[in-house]
Amino acid sequence: MTTMTNQAANRGAAQDAIAFTLDAPEISTLFELTRELSDLNAAASLQSWDQQTQMAMGSNMVRAPQMATLRAVIHERQSAPSLGQAIDAAEKALAAAPDRFTVADHALAREARRGYDHAIRLPTSFVRDFSDATSAAWEAWMSAKAAKDFSTFAAPLARVVDLCRLRAELLDPQADPYAVLFDLYEPGLSLAECGAALERVREATVPLLKRIQQATPIDDTPLRGDFSDDGEMTLSRVMLEIIGYQFKNGRLDLSAHPFTTSIGSPYDVRVTTRLDRRNMVRALLPAMHEGGHALYELGVDPALCRTILGHGTSLGIHESQSRFWENVVGRAEPFWQAHYHHVQAVFPQPFKDVPVAAFVRALNRVKPDFIRVEADELTYNLHIIIRFELEQDLIHGALEVKDLPTAWNKKYHDYLGVDPTDDAVGVMQDIHWSHGSFGYFSTYSLGNLFAAQFAATMRAVFPDMDERLARGETSFLREWQRENIHRWGKTWLSNELSQRITGEPLNPDHFISYVTAKFERLYGLKN
Amino acid sequence: MTTMTNQAANRGAAQDAIAFTLDAPEISTLFELTRELSDLNAAASLQSWDQQTQMAMGSNMVRAPQMATLRAVIHERQSAPSLGQAIDAAEKALAAAPDRFTVADHALAREARRGYDHAIRLPTSFVRDFSDATSAAWEAWMSAKAAKDFSTFAAPLARVVDLCRLRAELLDPQADPYAVLFDLYEPGLSLAECGAALERVREATVPLLKRIQQATPIDDTPLRGDFSDDGEMTLSRVMLEIIGYQFKNGRLDLSAHPFTTSIGSPYDVRVTTRLDRRNMVRALLPAMHEGGHALYELGVDPALCRTILGHGTSLGIHESQSRFWENVVGRAEPFWQAHYHHVQAVFPQPFKDVPVAAFVRALNRVKPDFIRVEADELTYNLHIIIRFELEQDLIHGALEVKDLPTAWNKKYHDYLGVDPTDDAVGVMQDIHWSHGSFGYFSTYSLGNLFAAQFAATMRAVFPDMDERLARGETSFLREWQRENIHRWGKTWLSNELSQRITGEPLNPDHFISYVTAKFERLYGLKN
Repeated sequence: MTTMTNQAANRGAAQDAIAFTLDAPEISTLFELTRELSDLNAAASLQSWDQQTQMAMGSNMVRAPQMATLRAVIHERQSAPSLGQAIDAAEKALAAAPDRFTVADHALAREARRGYDHAIRLPTSFVRDFSDATSAAWEAWMSAKAAKDFSTFAAPLARVVDLCRLRAELLDPQADPYAVLFDLYEPGLSLAECGAALERVREATVPLLKRIQQATPIDDTPLRGDFSDDGEMTLSRVMLEIIGYQFKNGRLDLSAHPFTTSIGSPYDVRVTTRLDRRNMVRALLPAMHEGGHALYELGVDPALCRTILGHGTSLGIHESQSRFWENVVGRAEPFWQAHYHHVQAVFPQPFKDVPVAAFVRALNRVKPDFIRVEADELTYNLHIIIRFELEQDLIHGALEVKDLPTAWNKKYHDYLGVDPTDDAVGVMQDIHWSHGSFGYFSTYSLGNLFAAQFAATMRAVFPDMDERLARGETSFLREWQRENIHRWGKTWLSNELSQRITGEPLNPDHFISYVTAKFERLYGLKN
Repeated sequence: MTTMTNQAANRGAAQDAIAFTLDAPEISTLFELTRELSDLNAAASLQSWDQQTQMAMGSNMVRAPQMATLRAVIHERQSAPSLGQAIDAAEKALAAAPDRFTVADHALAREARRGYDHAIRLPTSFVRDFSDATSAAWEAWMSAKAAKDFSTFAAPLARVVDLCRLRAELLDPQADPYAVLFDLYEPGLSLAECGAALERVREATVPLLKRIQQATPIDDTPLRGDFSDDGEMTLSRVMLEIIGYQFKNGRLDLSAHPFTTSIGSPYDVRVTTRLDRRNMVRALLPAMHEGGHALYELGVDPALCRTILGHGTSLGIHESQSRFWENVVGRAEPFWQAHYHHVQAVFPQPFKDVPVAAFVRALNRVKPDFIRVEADELTYNLHIIIRFELEQDLIHGALEVKDLPTAWNKKYHDYLGVDPTDDAVGVMQDIHWSHGSFGYFSTYSLGNLFAAQFAATMRAVFPDMDERLARGETSFLREWQRENIHRWGKTWLSNELSQRITGEPLNPDHFISYVTAKFERLYGLKN
């Protein structure tokens, strides 16, 4: 541990143990009360995971109100006066002698305060309404998407939008309601910072995309074929194991929209993926993406297990971990030099005659299209910017839900030059709005930006990163992430964490440099 | 609906609608409070189902305390003074004007009282300890059974026995502790009634078994073969569909010990089975057994959905429904005359050359063995009587857990003339004790007795039952059960229900007549 490399690897992230000062009654009381919340939330996570992966459809009519009951009980305890008093006492003790306490103690009080303040501002009746409305909207979304008919989704979605507006007003009647919603997902930086970064990305993306569209297109027909479900699941499992996902602490299932759930601890973190018979990459990359999320949750320090700090610190940082494994690693030639043989072994047709370089080029084709989750690394952020703008219009009342498909299609036409063929692959392609997650989408782009920013630091720490990837190594990257990011859970907020690791807060230039260099090389563009 | 048959079908069971008097505030308050309990218990059921069917083993170390937290919260609400006051108020209103209220109202107050009185007698600390201890014992049982080593299970099991004794003392310090535990599972009849019935069964079984053992043995080699997992699962699904299980409201999974779980409503009732490569009947009959349980839960009246009355009324009655489909139907030749072709289609080897009569004879071979779940209909109750006696000795302190394997093996030798080859197939064959379910096993035999008693009534109602089964009909039986048993949920206690349906409380003579006639015929015994 005396080389420059290892010193740099730990820059800013002290090797200190994570622990709570449980012999201080102000901390132990708060610890116990919030542990109960963590465990009850784990039960709610399981209900949700089961609803999306295992439950028969005929059961949803009762699952929705059952989930609402549990959420109402959680809300009641999350807003209990006894919790408020415990937080007050902890804050007082921390303020009186800050150095007597650990960073985990301070973070525990901060997160408990945040959760409590939110809860006391949202009455139980609101929580129950929100739960009922989002369960109904999710079910409507499933049916409407299958029928390619937005009209049956419009009313349940409008109800969710109304409740999101109400939520923002209840939380902070003075602030921009959209900023309040954004803060639910990314408390570590402001909506203004996010907006400015997205604007910088848009300004850099549009001209680069234009240059690419004038170059010789990349052929992605090598990725097409007729792929068995079993083969895609096998390959997804293999890739998850390669990046270090632990099946002894989780499982892989199928769901309409891939997702990762921690069932309340780093010992039970489950991922899902989907299948695509024509294009196995559409199953494989989501699995690696969710695997990246899962590594974060699995890597949380045992000391934070079953505590409210025991999850990723923000959605932007979470997404940086999934994007790193999906894109920075999963679309990089050195990685596939080591692992492409698995693809060829599972699917000799069509891959036995496709060289690794052609496979990787196909993985990186840039082509504006209308499905977000299949977008390339460059155009992806334009999908997010569209949602970011539409959400603000919806929440600010400048756009009505019934007009959403038209507005959606217009922006896709204007920004990406594509026209969704129907609403199932247009405005209803994503599950998020049915869940009431307004303010959430921008964290996907924040993930791209943080991923590139962290990767720049990792390249400085590991100048031989590509060579090691090409030799089949992945654990050095995962270990670095675990030490610097994963194990801390919610100890640090996103910009704090970025500052500790990279020496600066969110900076979109790293992403812009990364995609510019990558696509200039791939498309043979002149500088 | 004017024939004698249909009138008889409804004997005692009025066609009245099931409803609550929700415009009476005493009822509606109690209804809401107990609805919350029902929903929270559904979340706990899901945790348990997931633990046994989906969860990775590495997650159990956190699932156990997470489950304990939820159970403690449920217990807190189950013993809340506000619930006690609501029950008092409801009881007062019901007593003042009993005829103003429905049978559902009366049953709601009765079940709420029962749950509340139990809860206030069991402190939260006990509930948490019990949950921790049984989770630990379950995990230890899994490992110990795999290793065929009782010694690692002994300490966790002894802890569970101690807590069961404590539970009985807390619930009723004056009563026989084993009677108190028995009442947890079968509140509708007394331990004395149960003991007397089992004694009658033992007295009839022993001489009948002796006569059978002197007759020409039945050959069950037709059931042996090499059966694929997929084939067994396919056949299990087919049989579940034939008896009327609804996959749109449930699912079939694998687990170490087959079980049925209602996730809190008749719209989500899940079954599990197990596989056996050498003997497909060991997968098939458990599936039909669990399917019988599931039909009960699926058949509960919608008015009882998400209420504390929305489940089967007792374990004995529940088991009567599973035994009916597993044994009275699932081992009967008329049923297989209609459905054996499915078995032959899935497994042409070995069944294409086995006539249906030989298949059914093999299904009904009587042979004392040491595995309860594989026992024939006749010797099955001896397995239960052994557990019934050992449990009483354990709870009364006449037997120590460390001496349990020796006592177990001695009774198997004395009662059944068999010697378990190791503790995995001996004392550790069943999951129940690890769950702390002392007092439970005897309800399996009560199920056999009630199944035969109800079947006798059904035969009177449907004199052409065998002919209809042979034509492939099953719904007439299921509809009769639904109307007379299933839809009522917990409205009636077990002996009340029996009285309504059959005109008498539990009477073991029906079972004795049934097995005597059946095995005299199968073994060609003289009277």
